[in-house]
Amino acid sequence: MGSQNDAASLQSIRYHRGSLHLLDQRKLPLDTIYLEIRDAVEGWDAIREMVVRGAPAIAIAAALSLAVEVSKLEGFSGTPKDAASFLEKKLEYLVSSRPTAVNLSDAATKLTEIVMNSAETATEANQVFQAYIDAAEIMLEDDVASNKAIGSYGSSLIQNQKKDLKKLSVLTHCNTGSLATAGYGTALGVIRALHADGVLESAYCTETRPFNQGSRLTAFELVHDKIPATLIADSAAAALMKTGRVHAVIVGADRVAANGDTANKIGTYSLALSAKHHGVLFYVAAPLTSIDLSVGSGDEIVIEERSAKELLNTRGGLGEQVAASGISVWNPAFDVTPADLISGIITEKGVITKTGNDLFDIKGFVHKTMSSN
Amino acid sequence: MGSQNDAASLQSIRYHRGSLHLLDQRKLPLDTIYLEIRDAVEGWDAIREMVVRGAPAIAIAAALSLAVEVSKLEGFSGTPKDAASFLEKKLEYLVSSRPTAVNLSDAATKLTEIVMNSAETATEANQVFQAYIDAAEIMLEDDVASNKAIGSYGSSLIQNQKKDLKKLSVLTHCNTGSLATAGYGTALGVIRALHADGVLESAYCTETRPFNQGSRLTAFELVHDKIPATLIADSAAAALMKTGRVHAVIVGADRVAANGDTANKIGTYSLALSAKHHGVLFYVAAPLTSIDLSVGSGDEIVIEERSAKELLNTRGGLGEQVAASGISVWNPAFDVTPADLISGIITEKGVITKTGNDLFDIKGFVHKTMSSN
Repeated sequence: MGSQNDAASLQSIRYHRGSLHLLDQRKLPLDTIYLEIRDAVEGWDAIREMVVRGAPAIAIAAALSLAVEVSKLEGFSGTPKDAASFLEKKLEYLVSSRPTAVNLSDAATKLTEIVMNSAETATEANQVFQAYIDAAEIMLEDDVASNKAIGSYGSSLIQNQKKDLKKLSVLTHCNTGSLATAGYGTALGVIRALHADGVLESAYCTETRPFNQGSRLTAFELVHDKIPATLIADSAAAALMKTGRVHAVIVGADRVAANGDTANKIGTYSLALSAKHHGVLFYVAAPLTSIDLSVGSGDEIVIEERSAKELLNTRGGLGEQVAASGISVWNPAFDVTPADLISGIITEKGVITKTGNDLFDIKGFVHKTMSSN
Repeated sequence: MGSQNDAASLQSIRYHRGSLHLLDQRKLPLDTIYLEIRDAVEGWDAIREMVVRGAPAIAIAAALSLAVEVSKLEGFSGTPKDAASFLEKKLEYLVSSRPTAVNLSDAATKLTEIVMNSAETATEANQVFQAYIDAAEIMLEDDVASNKAIGSYGSSLIQNQKKDLKKLSVLTHCNTGSLATAGYGTALGVIRALHADGVLESAYCTETRPFNQGSRLTAFELVHDKIPATLIADSAAAALMKTGRVHAVIVGADRVAANGDTANKIGTYSLALSAKHHGVLFYVAAPLTSIDLSVGSGDEIVIEERSAKELLNTRGGLGEQVAASGISVWNPAFDVTPADLISGIITEKGVITKTGNDLFDIKGFVHKTMSSN
């Protein structure tokens, strides 16, 4: 099995059977250094030390670090059940690298089920290990395939909405690209697809204060992939839209509520207000796993507050002091954009559009999708 | 003559006859260091080297540097006309420190007229020098008095609009305080007045990317004056307004057009859109000198673009690299907020409010003000 990623776009996870390299995101954008990960311990360290970030990317990096370890395992003398138990413990250990990451614990649960099932029928430990490796590789493949489907649906949608234009420009926020996923990206995947379709005039990315995921990571991906791109201050987005140079805003999602209200990186709501005022399309691009039907609306989403240091010092709090000593800080990690400001939600199974009464039927879309699987 | 500034609030210009000290703004917010300015040459250097910034502050610092020089002048042997000519040349030289600063060249023109007139009637050179010193000191007094009037009108206005509230919170952008003016400030003067009136719950200030005038300077002034204050990322303003914790937004102005459209620091327009969406009052605080009746509307205002480095590196371009190499940047210095998003314009002569048809009669206000002088 070869590399799972698109050779043309940036790879944060370089994998082929028996070999895993992770792009060290701590060194970006100044240095592009890949670290070899040979086992679960090195995978754990890479997650803990922020070599890899982004919920889907973390889950897959963890799974693959263990796949690499077991692919080289020699002289395991136990039964198939011993093998399953060995893998279960390793997965538990990997989850402890970032206990709050839902994708990571979800992935560990899913993989544990697979190896337990495999152990029921396997005659040799090695068959269980093989089942694990296959499942981890499928996760990588599936995430990239899901993102490419999002990209394709999003690109078609936007081209359809703007049929009169030969070239389109879009604005995005934060980082939703190859650096946050197994590859290609969600909102940034739509931009990649527009570029691949030859219709992208320019991508605009915000700095995304206070952690600068836009200027550090999204800008890096866009330059790497030779996509025409321009960086702006978050606060310049409204002025940019006023010039008429932006045809759509595309953002990712931390969580989408059952009514379509979307929690995403702080600043998303402000972009949505500006987009509405200027009649600019505003899309959320997210896999179905980001939709949480147990949350009725954005009002139920608790906004996490992050360290004041992110605003007081450079480099997300690690660098030199910038702000005045003694000032209080309010630093919410994300905000909620109400569904009425969202033109559509682009998933790997198609676009969720509004019904006649300006409401999303997300539950209906999800159920239809699941029943057709 | 004693100090012209309010002892309670931060002084960027410390002056009494024969002595001038400027707060070195390059060292803020980490160090509070005053530099002694003994003559026009040292004044020129201080402006050129950005010890002092902000259009009104620059003009007054320049004028006072020359006032200090002539107050110590010994053995000037020329006629009154020689004295006027000496001062004119010094003023021309001071203007060359920042040729594009309109306030500075306006101040030089005004002061030159005064010394020329004085030379017509004076019998000794010293009388001309005295006239110059008096005029420069009046400029300092007038700017502070004008800002205090803005503060007073603004505070009353907002208290009147929000009679049902015992305490109010306001959001401001960029730096419009003692560090940008001769003292007290315009939009920040209104915040100082609300605090002095005992009705300020909290002031919120934005970082004001990319040059961080908010986190470096406004936060510094607010902490210095012990005004309850909280710093936010520019992009968090909409989320903050959604919580209902902001009752008014108050910003300064680079230029106000005849219809009320206001050019101000990039990000102001975005704040105005958020304020409108959330039903939050949005005020511009500016002296009458910022109103340019020769400009019909904001469409006629050309938006200056600044260096890409301000976004690519920390410390406004002087610090370490943050953003990805090779990314293009769009870095407009300011944006235009249309009059329809502005609730009122607070000047030192009162508040310009809207007439029945949602329009400002700025020309009428200015003419009425001038005829009553």
